[in-house]
Amino acid sequence: MKQNGIEIEDTFAEAFGIKIARVLITGVTKRWALVSATEATGFGTSVIACPCEAGIEKVVDGSQTPDGRPGVHIQLCTFGYKALEEQLLSRIGQCVLTAPTAAMFNGLPDAEKQFDTGFKLKFFADGYESETEIGGRKTYKIPMMEGDFIAEHSIGAVNGIAGGNFFILAENQMAALAAAESAVDVISLMDGTITPFPGGIVASGSKRGANKYKSMKATTNHRYAPSLKDKIPDTLIPKDVNAIYELVINGINEDVIKEAMKAGIEASVRVPGVKKITAGNYGGSLGKYRINLHDLF
Amino acid sequence: MKQNGIEIEDTFAEAFGIKIARVLITGVTKRWALVSATEATGFGTSVIACPCEAGIEKVVDGSQTPDGRPGVHIQLCTFGYKALEEQLLSRIGQCVLTAPTAAMFNGLPDAEKQFDTGFKLKFFADGYESETEIGGRKTYKIPMMEGDFIAEHSIGAVNGIAGGNFFILAENQMAALAAAESAVDVISLMDGTITPFPGGIVASGSKRGANKYKSMKATTNHRYAPSLKDKIPDTLIPKDVNAIYELVINGINEDVIKEAMKAGIEASVRVPGVKKITAGNYGGSLGKYRINLHDLF
Amino acid sequence: MKQNGIEIEDTFAEAFGIKIARVLITGVTKRWALVSATEATGFGTSVIACPCEAGIEKVVDGSQTPDGRPGVHIQLCTFGYKALEEQLLSRIGQCVLTAPTAAMFNGLPDAEKQFDTGFKLKFFADGYESETEIGGRKTYKIPMMEGDFIAEHSIGAVNGIAGGNFFILAENQMAALAAAESAVDVISLMDGTITPFPGGIVASGSKRGANKYKSMKATTNHRYAPSLKDKIPDTLIPKDVNAIYELVINGINEDVIKEAMKAGIEASVRVPGVKKITAGNYGGSLGKYRINLHDLF
Amino acid sequence: MKQNGIEIEDTFAEAFGIKIARVLITGVTKRWALVSATEATGFGTSVIACPCEAGIEKVVDGSQTPDGRPGVHIQLCTFGYKALEEQLLSRIGQCVLTAPTAAMFNGLPDAEKQFDTGFKLKFFADGYESETEIGGRKTYKIPMMEGDFIAEHSIGAVNGIAGGNFFILAENQMAALAAAESAVDVISLMDGTITPFPGGIVASGSKRGANKYKSMKATTNHRYAPSLKDKIPDTLIPKDVNAIYELVINGINEDVIKEAMKAGIEASVRVPGVKKITAGNYGGSLGKYRINLHDLF
Repeated sequence: MKQNGIEIEDTFAEAFGIKIARVLITGVTKRWALVSATEATGFGTSVIACPCEAGIEKVVDGSQTPDGRPGVHIQLCTFGYKALEEQLLSRIGQCVLTAPTAAMFNGLPDAEKQFDTGFKLKFFADGYESETEIGGRKTYKIPMMEGDFIAEHSIGAVNGIAGGNFFILAENQMAALAAAESAVDVISLMDGTITPFPGGIVASGSKRGANKYKSMKATTNHRYAPSLKDKIPDTLIPKDVNAIYELVINGINEDVIKEAMKAGIEASVRVPGVKKITAGNYGGSLGKYRINLHDLF
Repeated sequence: MKQNGIEIEDTFAEAFGIKIARVLITGVTKRWALVSATEATGFGTSVIACPCEAGIEKVVDGSQTPDGRPGVHIQLCTFGYKALEEQLLSRIGQCVLTAPTAAMFNGLPDAEKQFDTGFKLKFFADGYESETEIGGRKTYKIPMMEGDFIAEHSIGAVNGIAGGNFFILAENQMAALAAAESAVDVISLMDGTITPFPGGIVASGSKRGANKYKSMKATTNHRYAPSLKDKIPDTLIPKDVNAIYELVINGINEDVIKEAMKAGIEASVRVPGVKKITAGNYGGSLGKYRINLHDLF
Repeated sequence: MKQNGIEIEDTFAEAFGIKIARVLITGVTKRWALVSATEATGFGTSVIACPCEAGIEKVVDGSQTPDGRPGVHIQLCTFGYKALEEQLLSRIGQCVLTAPTAAMFNGLPDAEKQFDTGFKLKFFADGYESETEIGGRKTYKIPMMEGDFIAEHSIGAVNGIAGGNFFILAENQMAALAAAESAVDVISLMDGTITPFPGGIVASGSKRGANKYKSMKATTNHRYAPSLKDKIPDTLIPKDVNAIYELVINGINEDVIKEAMKAGIEASVRVPGVKKITAGNYGGSLGKYRINLHDLF
Repeated sequence: MKQNGIEIEDTFAEAFGIKIARVLITGVTKRWALVSATEATGFGTSVIACPCEAGIEKVVDGSQTPDGRPGVHIQLCTFGYKALEEQLLSRIGQCVLTAPTAAMFNGLPDAEKQFDTGFKLKFFADGYESETEIGGRKTYKIPMMEGDFIAEHSIGAVNGIAGGNFFILAENQMAALAAAESAVDVISLMDGTITPFPGGIVASGSKRGANKYKSMKATTNHRYAPSLKDKIPDTLIPKDVNAIYELVINGINEDVIKEAMKAGIEASVRVPGVKKITAGNYGGSLGKYRINLHDLF
């Protein structure tokens, strides 16, 4: 199968279940909402060695927020609800409560699972807190040096999916990178998904385990390493390819992951120098979700 | 004392010792170096509940980097060297090695204390790594999907200082915020310091411990909370002040902290609506460094 | 009338007819489309002394562009079609054709009035041009150093409206500015309108003509100048107001102007320190459109 | 000659004299100074059809500005002083005076040639202006809606140079573009120069006149057009090159142009996919300055 003349390999992305909380951060302007969201989602690329996976889902205007101010949806993702609650508390307490003009609202108010993160944050007020209602939400006012911090009582979470992905194979690194950035551009406008790696892009796609250093949980996907393609017998890199970036996509359900993969691939194949699209899987051993690239189109 | 007509209170900022590692991240362009640096320093505002304090120190051009590419100095700060080594390994492994076009160099090559972070990262290469020299530095090449990741063998660290600070008291929140941003603007051009909070600014300056919720390590600095000023007897807020932001500054020695505080205050007092500058201290109980505001000028 | 507790004066914005062309600029990524759009709409705040009024209307994703790449709608506005054609030719020729990865499409393909700007640009190809169809549009390929520039044959234009406006009166300059920025944030997401001044905001609202320097076409709206409020008898500034910013909005019809004014005012009144909203008019002498603020809500 | 393994062609850039005015725009923060500077330098790529060539030279901190606020140096360039004075008046009057928090200072106070642009702008105050001194500069206060606009009496200008340039030839468009961006990154930190094209980069390098459409002043440099390389007999494009970007550099004297060309080339040749550097000249017929690439190193 080809899209815009570029081969889409007949393979599947292997994804797996993860717990996802969604938080809506508002600010006096879009820029200040993004400052808080960026801090709160940093050091959050992969659960391999980050405390959680995290990213900015989408910017929304005041018509879509309880306090009428511009907002940013962020997602935090961990394997279990206990770790998720800890991350919510520490990331919101340290990166949203502390951020200029930020307020915190529930990004999944209809989810069955709810954490009382706002309730716990109010203890920072040392007895000066008060309860109030904003846009129909039960919130707390926490008096601070900048003024009152507003925190909604609960933050919702769902069983989501991590590890949706595709690989962009290109003639050289800059072509692959521009294609990856154009994919992130379009995904950043879509509902329900994040691309948790730096700038939304993975430079270092990995394989599970290791051949040589057996204690490593994950090591370089050497069969897709361009500088090894002439040195190893089992390279998977076509002759005209010299760089690869991976997009990793987490989302609140399988549909949004598929939509994001489709839109991201469609954007990528329009960038000059892109040669092929494929996806990462582990023969089905890692996750229960298999998203076939050819089924997207 | 007044600066630009604004009162500088006769008090001191109380700061304390911390371990600081400095990493130089380079990228194909300044923008891509910043993408990695931003991810690597996120979730890093305060050691109260973040794994470390972290921030971007300064952007440098190719004449100041071993590989001739644009670079960004970042700092990671923890109370002990063990935690610092863990943070270096996980943050660089997850946020720099994974980031498009990023390379990692030692930001303190002359420091006595050196971690072999690059040496440890090379195991990701699963045996395909090689050693090379770039700009006189001992580095490893790690073959990955984007190409080769370059990691210098060592990352240096020093005994630095955390908690340099000053408070900006203003007529209202937006005036205080613009003043704080102008302070961050100038400090971001200076050597040796970071402002680890979101956008460089603290909205929620705290006191040690609590009066009511005794289990809390830190709670709101209620005597500086504008919404309480008419409700509590011992408020410290002048009548014409309705919002306060704090700048918190970490740095590799006392001199750079002082220079940053001076430049930040000078920038702040030029913003219309600013009424007073003061600083945070705990009566000398927290830290061994006392930086008198009046001594700065 | 009040909105969010802030007085909306019972007055009207006086607007007037203008010719508006809309151009869709696409790029390999959103960022590069914006680079071209920013250059093409610069030096375009007011027809008083700029060659045209110009601004960025909205960012769109690849599903809304003929070539499937990210795009930016811009508007150029002049009093007559002759000047508009000249501006299209020079601004697109100098700021879009010259910009990395940019392509030019018709932003108003259904308008009655169409300029053959793309046809004229193709002469730059010096005989090497060719015709092609992209997304159903008749376009030209112009071979250049970066590759082929794509220009659609025609650019459409309509009778639009300029000078939609409102004033944000606030306690001080930074409060007024943050409110103005929050208004620009929301308007930048809406269809059909631009805010042509720097950052979307006017610092220097004017009156027609002059009292003293009779040769001037426009001079400071001195009755709204805060530094004169205690010096002149007929100031219009309330006692608690010390700074004012104006939003000026152009758009392709009256409805989009009204929607943008409404959303912008709703955003503004949520910013702490804002005291009053009013609008600029000249007693009805300047333009034929009167947009009553109270009718918006 | 090679730099970082990339061939530097033995040729010269042909540059020519131009008049350059330098303006220092300050703002309450760096961001707001840049908003004004961006508007004031837009629609300013080439004197072929823009009213002037214009660009941002450099960001400076408060220690380098008369009012102690962050600032941005911009340059405006025209062939004659009459046109330059007109551009100063209209661009500063429409894009700096109108911009939030902006002030205007002389960027070349020691130049022999001085325009009284500030003096002329003060008529906007309609008699309410006053004279004052800021940082030793003679300035006017112009009461406006945001507060007082500060304009220095004079703006200086010099005989400068336009058209310093080099070409980046690369394997594909994205490699050429990243190299061009990395060159702009480093030049944007240097004194005395601007890169006036969109994002600092020229996609459409031209030749003088035309072969076919004789009325055109400039047409595509077809011998450097990649899509023609297999169709014309006299292409100048090497076999392995498929895209080219040009950097055009204006500056206040020949030395700063040379330094910028050198630093820009050194940055470019580090980007993977770059194949060759050359420069544009017209056999010496256009300008009196010849800058040999080999002499730079």
